[in-house]
Amino acid sequence: MTIAIIGAAGMLGRKLAARLVAARWDDHLLLLDVVAPSAPAGFAGTADCRAADLALPGTAEALVAARPGIIFHLAAIVSAEAEVDFDKGYRINLDGTRALFEAIRVAHLADGYCPRVVFTSSCAVFGAPLPDPVPQHFHLTPLTSYGTQKAICELLLADYARRGFFDGVGLRLPTICIRPGAPNRAASGFFSSILREPLIGREAILPVRDSLRHWHASPRAAVGFLLHAARLDTAPLGAQRNLTLPGLSATVADQIEALRRVAGDAAVALIRRAPDPAIDAIVSGWAAGFDASEALALGFAADASFDAIIAAHIEDELDGRIGPR
Amino acid sequence: MTIAIIGAAGMLGRKLAARLVAARWDDHLLLLDVVAPSAPAGFAGTADCRAADLALPGTAEALVAARPGIIFHLAAIVSAEAEVDFDKGYRINLDGTRALFEAIRVAHLADGYCPRVVFTSSCAVFGAPLPDPVPQHFHLTPLTSYGTQKAICELLLADYARRGFFDGVGLRLPTICIRPGAPNRAASGFFSSILREPLIGREAILPVRDSLRHWHASPRAAVGFLLHAARLDTAPLGAQRNLTLPGLSATVADQIEALRRVAGDAAVALIRRAPDPAIDAIVSGWAAGFDASEALALGFAADASFDAIIAAHIEDELDGRIGPR
Repeated sequence: MTIAIIGAAGMLGRKLAARLVAARWDDHLLLLDVVAPSAPAGFAGTADCRAADLALPGTAEALVAARPGIIFHLAAIVSAEAEVDFDKGYRINLDGTRALFEAIRVAHLADGYCPRVVFTSSCAVFGAPLPDPVPQHFHLTPLTSYGTQKAICELLLADYARRGFFDGVGLRLPTICIRPGAPNRAASGFFSSILREPLIGREAILPVRDSLRHWHASPRAAVGFLLHAARLDTAPLGAQRNLTLPGLSATVADQIEALRRVAGDAAVALIRRAPDPAIDAIVSGWAAGFDASEALALGFAADASFDAIIAAHIEDELDGRIGPR
Repeated sequence: MTIAIIGAAGMLGRKLAARLVAARWDDHLLLLDVVAPSAPAGFAGTADCRAADLALPGTAEALVAARPGIIFHLAAIVSAEAEVDFDKGYRINLDGTRALFEAIRVAHLADGYCPRVVFTSSCAVFGAPLPDPVPQHFHLTPLTSYGTQKAICELLLADYARRGFFDGVGLRLPTICIRPGAPNRAASGFFSSILREPLIGREAILPVRDSLRHWHASPRAAVGFLLHAARLDTAPLGAQRNLTLPGLSATVADQIEALRRVAGDAAVALIRRAPDPAIDAIVSGWAAGFDASEALALGFAADASFDAIIAAHIEDELDGRIGPR
């Protein structure tokens, strides 16, 4: 079977491909991204790596021509960019996804093709004012164009699945923490950097109060969600194909105490408090936690603790060793 | 000021235009529909009547070129047709609406144009299983392509309004009852026909149990909602621009007793019970009632009773006289 990953050059896409290979799901991979993705290290199967824009005519059709049995659609313009560039956000996040769904529908009508489609949505489909926890069936009130685009794609996914054009599952991922790589300018960046940077002996800025609570999943858990969704029995979902996934609800103080337990006081001392009311205002509007009982009942599993998240990061990203590089 | 009505040849569009004229909102009307709309009787102002398809390139731009200060967007393919013809439903109900919103955005970016946009959504954005009443902030779970298209347009409207491209209000209308005209094949048709037909001495078929409860608004109330939305102070809405409107929650038995009070036992005797499990199954999945307290607080008013709904129908549609035609 061919497994397609759209957004294969991104952080999650690369980790997903590597995990598929490690777990031997790997007859044939079709990897697509706007920049050329590469096959995972040590991959013995065949990988078809394509650099193409899903929103351009023909890209989705060419992908569907390979009749992948599973399609992971992870590609998106991120929140900040979709807010700055209205046209680009709608073109990539909405029109690109719709082009994919339409190409699958045309193939379905031609020969009954009906792949599993796993789509990454986001908790950005919810917007303040939010109760804590956000209940299971809370209305979608995105406060960004990115969240709007994700919410629209959720609705399309549910309708196309209800019609039987494909077997779709939408996953509202928690904030990914610890996100590997260099610090970025996303408002949420500090959730990762206050752990990631001290672990390699670097200073990190904490712009919000320690009491701020947020909803997290490790990259490992996120990849686990994707794999679980790819094999999920979708019958119990009925018409409601989009799931709020379980996360770890933790305060910044919880994160810091986990860092202390794993890496000691010296690591914690590298966190410099520099309150930024603008960032505090943005992230205070985000959800502190969700009722994810539906996804839990379906077997999706959150990270056990922030200690475990940090340990996984050290194993996966730091070759098992903390301290300066 | 120019006031535009898209869907002006439809039942609500014609009544809205007539009411605008009666209430002297009528400097200039721009009436658009796929079939040529006509100016309301007795209209002394100028009416620009256009037969054009909003989903075709150029139609929305040409409408926006007139810079209407208020745009009522009522045009849609109805639920049953959108379910049968997937392409047409998405083309008219989604792409047509998006073309309008985009044309307004382009004009906004050019010269700051920022009209009030009143969009008719539907309770079809909600789908079973539904609590009774459906709470204020219940999630959108459309079970039809029509409901999906309306929900997507609600999200677009909220995002375009949040961005300041226009000042939009989306209205989730209850089922319109008594809908004038000939009986149709819509699953909901009996709610109107069991009143409308006996009032003119004709038999009507009741395919469901008398205890079925549903959510109604008269055409008069619906036009009232549109006018109220056109002048509403939208500041209290914040980012949540789509409102579940107040309706009259009534059982079929309530409807029949109102008919008896207004038109007597002879009229009621014209209702023939012919249970249809298929129709019962469809309408049993619809909501019995909604918490519309937000819209009520904003001044939207439901019909007072089914007696009042019937009386308004007799006045507006039957020249004040019941009995055979």
